[in-house]
Amino acid sequence: MDDADSYFRPTVAAMDGYVPGEQPKGRSFIKLNTNESQRGPSQTIAAALSALDPETLRLYPDPLCDSVRDVLAEVFGVARENIIAGNGSDDILTIVIRAFVDDGGLIAYPDPTYSLYPVLARIQNARSLVVPLDSDFSLPKGFADSVAGADLVILARPNAPTGVAYSLDEIESICAACLKRKQAVLIDEAYADFADDHCVGLISRYPNVIVSRTMSKSYALAGIRFGWAIADAELIAGMMKVKDSYNVNRVTQVIAEAAARDQARLRDLVQGVRTQRAWLLDELGRLGFRVTASQANFVFVSPPTGDAAGLFSYLRENGVLTRYFPAELTQSFLRITVGTKEQNATLLKHCGEFVAR
Amino acid sequence: MDDADSYFRPTVAAMDGYVPGEQPKGRSFIKLNTNESQRGPSQTIAAALSALDPETLRLYPDPLCDSVRDVLAEVFGVARENIIAGNGSDDILTIVIRAFVDDGGLIAYPDPTYSLYPVLARIQNARSLVVPLDSDFSLPKGFADSVAGADLVILARPNAPTGVAYSLDEIESICAACLKRKQAVLIDEAYADFADDHCVGLISRYPNVIVSRTMSKSYALAGIRFGWAIADAELIAGMMKVKDSYNVNRVTQVIAEAAARDQARLRDLVQGVRTQRAWLLDELGRLGFRVTASQANFVFVSPPTGDAAGLFSYLRENGVLTRYFPAELTQSFLRITVGTKEQNATLLKHCGEFVAR
Repeated sequence: MDDADSYFRPTVAAMDGYVPGEQPKGRSFIKLNTNESQRGPSQTIAAALSALDPETLRLYPDPLCDSVRDVLAEVFGVARENIIAGNGSDDILTIVIRAFVDDGGLIAYPDPTYSLYPVLARIQNARSLVVPLDSDFSLPKGFADSVAGADLVILARPNAPTGVAYSLDEIESICAACLKRKQAVLIDEAYADFADDHCVGLISRYPNVIVSRTMSKSYALAGIRFGWAIADAELIAGMMKVKDSYNVNRVTQVIAEAAARDQARLRDLVQGVRTQRAWLLDELGRLGFRVTASQANFVFVSPPTGDAAGLFSYLRENGVLTRYFPAELTQSFLRITVGTKEQNATLLKHCGEFVAR
Repeated sequence: MDDADSYFRPTVAAMDGYVPGEQPKGRSFIKLNTNESQRGPSQTIAAALSALDPETLRLYPDPLCDSVRDVLAEVFGVARENIIAGNGSDDILTIVIRAFVDDGGLIAYPDPTYSLYPVLARIQNARSLVVPLDSDFSLPKGFADSVAGADLVILARPNAPTGVAYSLDEIESICAACLKRKQAVLIDEAYADFADDHCVGLISRYPNVIVSRTMSKSYALAGIRFGWAIADAELIAGMMKVKDSYNVNRVTQVIAEAAARDQARLRDLVQGVRTQRAWLLDELGRLGFRVTASQANFVFVSPPTGDAAGLFSYLRENGVLTRYFPAELTQSFLRITVGTKEQNATLLKHCGEFVAR
């Protein structure tokens, strides 16, 4: 596309797009590749959807998403002004980068982490400062110092694809160092509901910290695209300026509000994942897999031979989709979404066969 | 917010956000201020919504929106590869700007036009080349020459808030001049279904031209956020790289597909607006208003005294919301969405009272 290239910004012409996990059409798979919930959303969601008057769809949605923000504010013990809503947390990530990182600016994040960060940096024509994690996927000691030049530091906690949750003390000391240097810190908590603790409490002490959340994983609502960020009200006000005016549609606002009100259902979904995760990690350990102490709704595991690519293909042939990241630091691991008891039993059976071959 | 300012990009710290039209809460208004459809979407939409299995909401949507793109491709006689879907056409505008305009780049558009363009330019830290329209809101003769330095030229056709549709010949000659100079041209056709003709046919001859569309106006679906662009396949492929991966949610995809299949309903909605528009323009003309030959679902009209601000307030006091743009070129006009027969009768009654005062 040499000819069309000339129309594009150089950074766009040169880049590859983000490649989302496979969404198979046709053949039916046990889908453990995109960290969706294996159980559906609640009856509350079905009720909210059927109570929606299609007639209202002719009207624009509330640009500020106040009804959802108010419920979330109560859940987190913050004010409406501390929350911004997005078209999924990917939209929140874009908003944060466009708010805080200029053309040619610097975004720092560990490696491996969510593979969308470098793509978003590239779109913004920002540079990436990639700090390798230690071999056990923990943050290296000098992390806070090594990101001193960044406009924005992004930390996924629990991290993807490793599942590791860095300690709250580590996170707080990074936030403190960045506050002194006037750097924004985004803590991507897409998986935090599955973890033992989270970072939202930091926002009252650190006016440079943004915590992002999503309903795609723990709320079993990847299909509606609803994410949000929690931060100091002045940061939120600035982020509002760069978002699309009507970024969250009416149906999603109705469903997200109902989901946010149903915290009992959330706890139930999360507890189910945590129970299955513990069992899966035990059993994979028993098969000789190396596993991380995942705090997310997936496990990150390496078969005894380290042949993760082989295992990926073997599982796929047997109808189980997982996610393989062929980069140096991740090539001996698979990221596998925690399934239902039945799905996990099938997965374990095939893992056992693979090991025994 | 001096302190928080330091976290933001200078362009973001300095800018104001986009101000959408008022979405009143509480008191009930005749809402003729945001160009929403006054009639609701069809039974087909209600049926599609109730056929949706809430269980599927746990899964990510199709990132490429293929089922909707395929129906739209058939409607427009193009290929799926000529279409990109967005979270409303605002998302399409953002995608186009991020694809084609670098930091410090130049975006050219006439004035007055859709007030979001300068905001999006600012977010991208691009410069705006603003070309004043002639006093009758037509394009000035030298328009194509005057935008020679731009990375992207944006033309809304029909234009907002004026309602004027520049002639297809004029548009084509601008596209041709821009093609020679390797400039991208975005034709924003948010209101094109209400016009006598449109520009989609240009994309096969002009590989530099993007036409954007939305379901917010003519399809009566502002609440679902669905927009799309039609262009040469190579332009679309590059635009795909900068969009959010899952930018259109599952519910919107289901509804948009149903709406796109129901072209008879679209024609019915459009015909209703055109009939009312003709009547409204006649009657306002009779009251001594200056009117433009609107091809959109709104009229752009100036009361005999030119006191549009006064008329805006008078109508608001009487429960009719319209849109007033206090800039120099627009300050003697109101933009008024075409309502139902009853709404228009009420509007005309109050306009008559205002003129008679």
